[in-house]
Amino acid sequence: MNSSAANTSEQQSTQARLEEMGRAAREASRRMARADTATKNRALHAIAEQLDVRRDQIAEANDRDMKAGRDNGLDAALLDRLELTGERIDGMIEGLHQIAELPDPVGEIDDLKYRPSGIQVGKMRVPLGVVGIIYESRPNVTIDAASLCLKSGNATILRGGSEALHSNGAIAVCIAAGLAEAGLPETAVQVVDTTDRAAVSALISMPEYVDVIVPRGGPSLIERVSRDARVPVIKHLHGVCHVYIDDRADLQKAFDIALNAKTHRYGVCNAMESLLVAEGVAADILPKLAQAYREKGVELRGCERTRKILEDCNPAAEADWSEEYLAPVLSIRIVEDLDAAMDHIARYGSGHTESIVTGDYSRARRFLAEVDSSSVMVNASTRFADGFEYGLGAEIGISTDKIHARGPVGLEGLTSQKWIVLGEGHIRQ
Amino acid sequence: MNSSAANTSEQQSTQARLEEMGRAAREASRRMARADTATKNRALHAIAEQLDVRRDQIAEANDRDMKAGRDNGLDAALLDRLELTGERIDGMIEGLHQIAELPDPVGEIDDLKYRPSGIQVGKMRVPLGVVGIIYESRPNVTIDAASLCLKSGNATILRGGSEALHSNGAIAVCIAAGLAEAGLPETAVQVVDTTDRAAVSALISMPEYVDVIVPRGGPSLIERVSRDARVPVIKHLHGVCHVYIDDRADLQKAFDIALNAKTHRYGVCNAMESLLVAEGVAADILPKLAQAYREKGVELRGCERTRKILEDCNPAAEADWSEEYLAPVLSIRIVEDLDAAMDHIARYGSGHTESIVTGDYSRARRFLAEVDSSSVMVNASTRFADGFEYGLGAEIGISTDKIHARGPVGLEGLTSQKWIVLGEGHIRQ
Repeated sequence: MNSSAANTSEQQSTQARLEEMGRAAREASRRMARADTATKNRALHAIAEQLDVRRDQIAEANDRDMKAGRDNGLDAALLDRLELTGERIDGMIEGLHQIAELPDPVGEIDDLKYRPSGIQVGKMRVPLGVVGIIYESRPNVTIDAASLCLKSGNATILRGGSEALHSNGAIAVCIAAGLAEAGLPETAVQVVDTTDRAAVSALISMPEYVDVIVPRGGPSLIERVSRDARVPVIKHLHGVCHVYIDDRADLQKAFDIALNAKTHRYGVCNAMESLLVAEGVAADILPKLAQAYREKGVELRGCERTRKILEDCNPAAEADWSEEYLAPVLSIRIVEDLDAAMDHIARYGSGHTESIVTGDYSRARRFLAEVDSSSVMVNASTRFADGFEYGLGAEIGISTDKIHARGPVGLEGLTSQKWIVLGEGHIRQ
Repeated sequence: MNSSAANTSEQQSTQARLEEMGRAAREASRRMARADTATKNRALHAIAEQLDVRRDQIAEANDRDMKAGRDNGLDAALLDRLELTGERIDGMIEGLHQIAELPDPVGEIDDLKYRPSGIQVGKMRVPLGVVGIIYESRPNVTIDAASLCLKSGNATILRGGSEALHSNGAIAVCIAAGLAEAGLPETAVQVVDTTDRAAVSALISMPEYVDVIVPRGGPSLIERVSRDARVPVIKHLHGVCHVYIDDRADLQKAFDIALNAKTHRYGVCNAMESLLVAEGVAADILPKLAQAYREKGVELRGCERTRKILEDCNPAAEADWSEEYLAPVLSIRIVEDLDAAMDHIARYGSGHTESIVTGDYSRARRFLAEVDSSSVMVNASTRFADGFEYGLGAEIGISTDKIHARGPVGLEGLTSQKWIVLGEGHIRQ
């Protein structure tokens, strides 16, 4: 058998394996949809207990992945994300208990009301069904994703990074044991155990078994999944977040927010990447801000007018305005007014998070209404765009889509609403 | 130039034309998103006025379509759907005024609350942006779709059936004039004016310009759009709706509901296609029901046990259980109990609408919770699954998807929610 034939045969067997997982997930999803809150919470606590009991096995499996990663030349950042220290296992355990504490969204009935025909109509919150999650190196995502899907009554198929195969396998054993202890089907959470890339293609092409795909990873993964999926996708593209300092801003607040939004953490999607400053206050605030950024080691890239004020600022190229740096780099543009700022955001932003700093009521109101991003803020740091800060209790990701779920996605984003109708023999006239 | 080269060149020009429309729609969507309620209502009333004033031109255009349809051998049903009588024009005008009366969903803020950090977090309802609608022969859909998108602050690109080209063109003139009268961009509603099928391919492949596609039409259109779209789709597949008569049902209510659900109208997606009857009451109710169906001319196809009770009932083949007849045909199955009924629905149903008839509280509660369909009913006819009956005021379609919008989709289904954050200089610690 030549190697291309071998590949094809491996792909076929991966395809068949994923279909089998899909069928089992669909079947399990019916059981999960009717599992009561106490049972689901029991499973979450039991999985936490299993993680605690099997720390040694998890550490061993993780060692194998770390060794393979080093042998394969993974860089230090990837190795760091791959590592499961005792502290990270504690974090996973704590996360499970926290999700058990959250209110169960399933079964909530909203807006039940009588209609002129005499029927009562309302909406009941229900699980989506089967959620496919595709993610990269961090093995603790396996627990995050599994626990959110479990609590929201979904079955899930998890496809982690190939470099975390053994770690994910060891975690999967804990999940299966915890589910069984609570009397729930082990197939409610299935972890794909092949590194064959065909598994992703198979997972995103089974609308009969999978209701939604959540890809978590770099742009190339997201783009591939979005392009090829035959299943709806809740995706998180990039965050090119803006702060606009209006000429009616309190300059101290503007200073604090612009500094925090850029320098609180660099490698996160809700960090500010572009600062827009109204021309009326640019000469006042930019030198102080630039000084603070310089002390933090942030490279500045400005428009021409910015460079007249900040002489040692690098020039910003056109490409800078749509760049997600995820690094100590900031582009700065001086704009005429609110309209120019909103035009810039509409043109270059990624629809993630934007904030205006202003003391003007009408401008704040316009910014809130007119900026088309998943989070729009007044006088607050973009770094607040986060499921925990918003009170969701947990977060499966931050959606930059407009359909279904937008911004931080918690338990509710993993559910939908069906209509319910209550009658007493009512018929349509 | 040979004919294949001519086709390619036509496709390229269609592609270019659609991209131009997409760009214009994206631009118009910003203006529409901030249009206030009064302006949008003014446009709706102005379009209604234009339809009234231009009745002759619309009738002329419709005559051309009807003549071409007859020449091309369209069947009577299609010709009927294509025809714009004076009464149908009245209906469109009335529909526009009704949509103007509906509450504007845009800008509604829900759940604004303080977080421990001191920020206030809530959700604001906003338009989706650009909605692409692909539909078949009925030209009055042009007004339905345009008015719902307009009221919900979206820009829209409408692609109607080629057989309605002139009618849709005449209606488009009215829409453009009405928009202009209210000071809104004419490009907020664009009607595709080519019959080239490449227009559909282009429209569903422009995620940069189109936020969601709503296909309204037969299964082949929906399947093609779902398979090829690179944009999220709110789709309506088929309605294989069930009524389950439990053995604790009030048999008079069961009779009324089963008769109404099947015979009130045949060609509609919320008509019952399969009747499930608990074995304990089958012998009681089926003969009476069969008699009533026979009087209405409904063909019955039953399982073996049904045929023992109803001797002149045709046998149901396996394929009958998943068939959407849209006709005076009904499949009937006797089932052991509630669980068997729900298993049948899970296996053969299309997730549209199912109803249980029962006097038993716990069974009603289980059916509501466990049946995974867009509408789930107790003691009511499936025919109630409808945007008007549910109080949405209007309906762009009935979604059989689970993501974003499920069941009847009104104005709210054409919007999404963004997060808003209000602070006073808050930064993340």
